[in-house]
Amino acid sequence: MITIDLNCDMGEGFGAYTIGNDEAILNYVTSVNIACGFHGGDPVVMDHTVQMALEKGVAIGAHPGLPDLMGFGRRSMGLSLKEARAYLIYQIGALNGFLKANGGRLQHVKPHGALYNMAASDRKLALALAEAVRAVDEELIFVGLAGSQMITAAREAGLKTAQEVFADRNYQANGLLVPRSSPNALIHDKKQCIDRVLKMVLEKKVMAVDGTEVDIQANTLCLHGDHPEALDFAKGLGAALLKERVKVVPLSQGREE
Amino acid sequence: MITIDLNCDMGEGFGAYTIGNDEAILNYVTSVNIACGFHGGDPVVMDHTVQMALEKGVAIGAHPGLPDLMGFGRRSMGLSLKEARAYLIYQIGALNGFLKANGGRLQHVKPHGALYNMAASDRKLALALAEAVRAVDEELIFVGLAGSQMITAAREAGLKTAQEVFADRNYQANGLLVPRSSPNALIHDKKQCIDRVLKMVLEKKVMAVDGTEVDIQANTLCLHGDHPEALDFAKGLGAALLKERVKVVPLSQGREE
Amino acid sequence: MITIDLNCDMGEGFGAYTIGNDEAILNYVTSVNIACGFHGGDPVVMDHTVQMALEKGVAIGAHPGLPDLMGFGRRSMGLSLKEARAYLIYQIGALNGFLKANGGRLQHVKPHGALYNMAASDRKLALALAEAVRAVDEELIFVGLAGSQMITAAREAGLKTAQEVFADRNYQANGLLVPRSSPNALIHDKKQCIDRVLKMVLEKKVMAVDGTEVDIQANTLCLHGDHPEALDFAKGLGAALLKERVKVVPLSQGREE
Amino acid sequence: MITIDLNCDMGEGFGAYTIGNDEAILNYVTSVNIACGFHGGDPVVMDHTVQMALEKGVAIGAHPGLPDLMGFGRRSMGLSLKEARAYLIYQIGALNGFLKANGGRLQHVKPHGALYNMAASDRKLALALAEAVRAVDEELIFVGLAGSQMITAAREAGLKTAQEVFADRNYQANGLLVPRSSPNALIHDKKQCIDRVLKMVLEKKVMAVDGTEVDIQANTLCLHGDHPEALDFAKGLGAALLKERVKVVPLSQGREE
Repeated sequence: MITIDLNCDMGEGFGAYTIGNDEAILNYVTSVNIACGFHGGDPVVMDHTVQMALEKGVAIGAHPGLPDLMGFGRRSMGLSLKEARAYLIYQIGALNGFLKANGGRLQHVKPHGALYNMAASDRKLALALAEAVRAVDEELIFVGLAGSQMITAAREAGLKTAQEVFADRNYQANGLLVPRSSPNALIHDKKQCIDRVLKMVLEKKVMAVDGTEVDIQANTLCLHGDHPEALDFAKGLGAALLKERVKVVPLSQGREE
Repeated sequence: MITIDLNCDMGEGFGAYTIGNDEAILNYVTSVNIACGFHGGDPVVMDHTVQMALEKGVAIGAHPGLPDLMGFGRRSMGLSLKEARAYLIYQIGALNGFLKANGGRLQHVKPHGALYNMAASDRKLALALAEAVRAVDEELIFVGLAGSQMITAAREAGLKTAQEVFADRNYQANGLLVPRSSPNALIHDKKQCIDRVLKMVLEKKVMAVDGTEVDIQANTLCLHGDHPEALDFAKGLGAALLKERVKVVPLSQGREE
Repeated sequence: MITIDLNCDMGEGFGAYTIGNDEAILNYVTSVNIACGFHGGDPVVMDHTVQMALEKGVAIGAHPGLPDLMGFGRRSMGLSLKEARAYLIYQIGALNGFLKANGGRLQHVKPHGALYNMAASDRKLALALAEAVRAVDEELIFVGLAGSQMITAAREAGLKTAQEVFADRNYQANGLLVPRSSPNALIHDKKQCIDRVLKMVLEKKVMAVDGTEVDIQANTLCLHGDHPEALDFAKGLGAALLKERVKVVPLSQGREE
Repeated sequence: MITIDLNCDMGEGFGAYTIGNDEAILNYVTSVNIACGFHGGDPVVMDHTVQMALEKGVAIGAHPGLPDLMGFGRRSMGLSLKEARAYLIYQIGALNGFLKANGGRLQHVKPHGALYNMAASDRKLALALAEAVRAVDEELIFVGLAGSQMITAAREAGLKTAQEVFADRNYQANGLLVPRSSPNALIHDKKQCIDRVLKMVLEKKVMAVDGTEVDIQANTLCLHGDHPEALDFAKGLGAALLKERVKVVPLSQGREE
């Protein structure tokens, strides 16, 4: 049986600021990536988000980012590998505190924003991140861009991996995403998005913007909680996957290939 | 046999900023309280400090503070109990990440600065802190001002406690410290400081500023690493305790009374 | 002719976070208080907000807060007077940069949140704030709670003042607001709010919660932009003031009494 | 007569943290660049540093950096031009507040750390910074790496410029500095440093690491306050310049070429 995990970034509010629609999207995903206070999230938000996810029975991962709240972790930074290691350990540890306090167990780690994009094409950085994850807990699953250096590095570090795909992003022929700065970065048509997901999951292929078919492995699909139409899309996708008998389960229950 | 722990705040640097003389003072203490990134400390500093302490075989505790780097955690803040809980869990968790990554185990938690002082006389806040510690790990020892609400609250929360005393601070008749804002807050004479420690440890008494003798239980004594004469004092104190056959051991090996 | 200024806090977003409905509320106010990066606001938000206000012809004031983004400046902090002075100068200066860059002139300063509340009853702090404002620019109008220490202190510092009143807050017999922690802090009925404003403006009186009539001077009325019904209320209030021939003008064009 | 300005970065402490030896180095420089709270500096430190510089009669400039206190502004960040503009205006404005409050006038702006290095080779960024400076005050002098894009862009923006040289840094044949990551980035011999400065000032030449002579214009020389031998070097340099009849004066009194 084919399986897929649906994940969503979550808990990215800060103090008086809220962002996204965490409570609603929790009903449509099997894993959540919880911000850890660097790019978003604060201790009160983390405590509350962990409690919500545990109540809904959704698997929890850490979503560590760059120390750049003003840029929401979306701006690249010239980190040293020592800093990258320490930032991962700090953030995973902090989130783990809330899992211990509320009676849960961390499933995975997925870097956020610019850190994710930097690591996707920088093997040394990806390895530093993966080794930091392993140092904290060798059972953690490392979630990274499908086919990227993150996956290679995490395997080299001895971690289980989950390859992440995107429904609404265009791909380049090398398997990397078309950058957000390009006009054709995003796919807006809902049906087209769902069709692409099905193709990735069932055929392990995605059509790049230049028309070539690229091999891709989809262990988990990223949904966004901050779009008004996110819930609509999640419902439609769920129905399409059910029709194709793809089982939607958390990473820890899926198959790694 | 009478035992005492010697503790020191540590790892309070941040980025390019250093403070204190951590490496030298590590040779004279049995426990260290490592800053967790709120009032001081950053992930790189925490990683390095944990490694140093593990190498020296010194017991490690978390030293969580208020989210006020600009004020070094020394300014009181109007926190809610929910915020206090979350800030403790976050910081203990973060430090715990470095202990896991470097192969160690957390011994204790000692709040820092204004949070320490606020909790010493605010039972509700002290209880919120103690319950947060317990939620993360019920084996952690809660270090608080001897005879204060912190000790009462930590016991109520079911935690082991360690009562902290100060060699260079004057006490009020109610057992609380004379505030730093008072002219007679500090004792500057080294011999007088050592004599006071011996009296606290051997006779369980301290002379308050009004001349009354106050009962006091000394499980751990706080040394300061940021004074030039700190090392001198540490050596003199060590010799005096040895002469009186007081055994200097980490909290986890001492006796709680 | 009787005049009143209508003011609104504004520009309190930060990075990816937005709060309030600044653009819409700008149509109903004569003055805005722009956050300066401590409790909310960031340089990009400040630049944009100043530009919007200048385009609408609305008078601009600085809205300095405590250095506590996580608490949105709403938590009291144990500041020294030296710190209070420096925080005001820094924030007013920063906002002033955007006024110079975009071709405008600062009209007033109104402290935010806990800093406002602390200064309302702490004469020394209020004086430190007022003197900081005067040191930067002696033409600035100091906006504070009507009848509070802020007004007395600002006059002592030689500043023009504007006394602020609230439509939806209950007052104590001593002229201070009923704290938000009390159940009867807020008035929810729109008509009752408007009637109270008219009474404050026309009769210079407000009914306190214990039934006594308190003298009050209303130079400016605070509207909130983050409530869904804020625009509705602003429209209703505008119509009521027009009917009573109260002229709504910026502080700099109003009369100080 | 040939003139040169000696400048030093200053006021980079934060809260309880101090860095550098500001008071001593003030006696040897004609201009200081004061940190503005992003990479270092806080309002209290800025207030104090401005007061010290005004007392010593040393010219004051703003030293704006990236919003990265943890990295001391030394790590590159992927800023947008809109963000770069706003960050400059904010920081210059904030420092300007302290000049107004203490009775002084801002002379120049010199970007700090990674922002300086990024702008030295990125014309668009350099132009965004220069235009931000000009928007705040068109009389401000823009200090940048001699011969770099910063100088070209500042002239394009209509600003006066000052070309900065370094005594202890090796140069590449293209006029840029050898990066700090290279083993031969720094020159450690004091006499060699002084000889290089004299050659840059008197002959307008510097020998690059590959042996070629590079044209260079030296309006201001950067001294470092955080090295123990900084004061020694400053004295020796002062004597050497005096002997060659080079007049050491602030930028505003020097000649721009």
